Amino acid sequence: AIMEELFKSPEAAPADSLDARGLSITLTAGPTRELLDPVRYLSNHSSGKMGYALARAAADLGARVKLISGPVALETPPGVERIDVESAREMHEAALRLARQSDVFIGCAAVADYRAETVSEHKIKKTDDQEGLTLKLVKNPDIIAEIGAMQEKRPYLVGFAAETQNLESHARDKLQRKKLDMIVANDVSQQGLGFGSDHNAALLLWRDADGEAAQRHFPATTKAMLARSILAAILEGLPHSQGRTS
Amino acid sequence: AIMEELFKSPEAAPADSLDARGLSITLTAGPTRELLDPVRYLSNHSSGKMGYALARAAADLGARVKLISGPVALETPPGVERIDVESAREMHEAALRLARQSDVFIGCAAVADYRAETVSEHKIKKTDDQEGLTLKLVKNPDIIAEIGAMQEKRPYLVGFAAETQNLESHARDKLQRKKLDMIVANDVSQQGLGFGSDHNAALLLWRDADGEAAQRHFPATTKAMLARSILAAILEGLPHSQGRTS
Repeated sequence: AIMEELFKSPEAAPADSLDARGLSITLTAGPTRELLDPVRYLSNHSSGKMGYALARAAADLGARVKLISGPVALETPPGVERIDVESAREMHEAALRLARQSDVFIGCAAVADYRAETVSEHKIKKTDDQEGLTLKLVKNPDIIAEIGAMQEKRPYLVGFAAETQNLESHARDKLQRKKLDMIVANDVSQQGLGFGSDHNAALLLWRDADGEAAQRHFPATTKAMLARSILAAILEGLPHSQGRTS
Repeated sequence: AIMEELFKSPEAAPADSLDARGLSITLTAGPTRELLDPVRYLSNHSSGKMGYALARAAADLGARVKLISGPVALETPPGVERIDVESAREMHEAALRLARQSDVFIGCAAVADYRAETVSEHKIKKTDDQEGLTLKLVKNPDIIAEIGAMQEKRPYLVGFAAETQNLESHARDKLQRKKLDMIVANDVSQQGLGFGSDHNAALLLWRDADGEAAQRHFPATTKAMLARSILAAILEGLPHSQGRTS
């Protein structure tokens, strides 16, 4: 079975045979920012580079691409329609709206799991007598799980998992729990890879046509190259009955 | 008294008479980031633009300039020595070390008041049964207050106050409480000014030679122009017995 997987691996498709014309692909990228008050926020180290590389590669292959982007310092790739958002709730609103119109949805953003229970209208003042501060956080909506649970017009769904330990088991659990079709897992504790870097390594897990779990490891490469390999895998994995909404 | 202040206002000094040669000026700029785990952090909306504009203007006037910078997307101004830091504690260490060697210290960074009590070594996993999360924060060192309290080699000390309400009273309180020589206060709730913008308006409060409180309002202008006006005020305010360490 391992040999079979190797030979029918998506990456084996020659690059020049890749064609995403007629496909509508929506992606999320970057971090979200969850305000605590008008100046302070909770965020994370996502640079958006992996999501932007995927958006660029998808547009290069002819897809209609919409990119829902958190705050990043990156230019919009040519041919990509970009929707700027700040918080997880703004991203959630845009994602659910666009997912219904998409053949493929790739959730690459590092969405904040939690936001402040209350956002202070004015800057929280530090007081001299107060040595600590307790911040009450509440869960944000789980964008990718909600799309996974869609009963109608559900797109082919690709998620990401950034982990610092137990990469494969965490990713496999997330693939099943959130009803994803594919998950791209990377170990963000590796020096020089992942967050902020132009390079990445990834473990790709997906469910094949028979519903069986399959996987492939992509060694460290540029995010641009990895984006192309991930798109090749998605195009291979897409049910032929589905998509091509043009 | 008001008329006197207007006429002896620092801004009245002609620009070409400004000279900071021989002065050593240390600044802090940008936000700090306080890690919660390897990927998440607490931060704020400071872009670093005001601090960088001040560093550039100070170097243009011939000062020896050291810029302690939090994570920003800005280029180092010509002739400025930049020290990159991430957390408030890193900024604190660099600032206390350099303050002793400086004639002027300008604390322009938006230093996080609080950090997480414990930083998780691994990414905090969201659990399905847990609807909320309580984050325990502890106070960071107060860099500017510690420099204000220095008994020896204390530099001329300039602080900033970003407020969303009661601008003047908050700034006056901070000037006295932290033993600053001057404070630059701005109202960050004003659209198009302050955080992230290239423009700013400011209220300058300082203690004059007689220890009396003086103030001047600078209407909205570019941060580059405002930086020059603030430096003019600092050069005017510097005790002639002090400084010029060259």
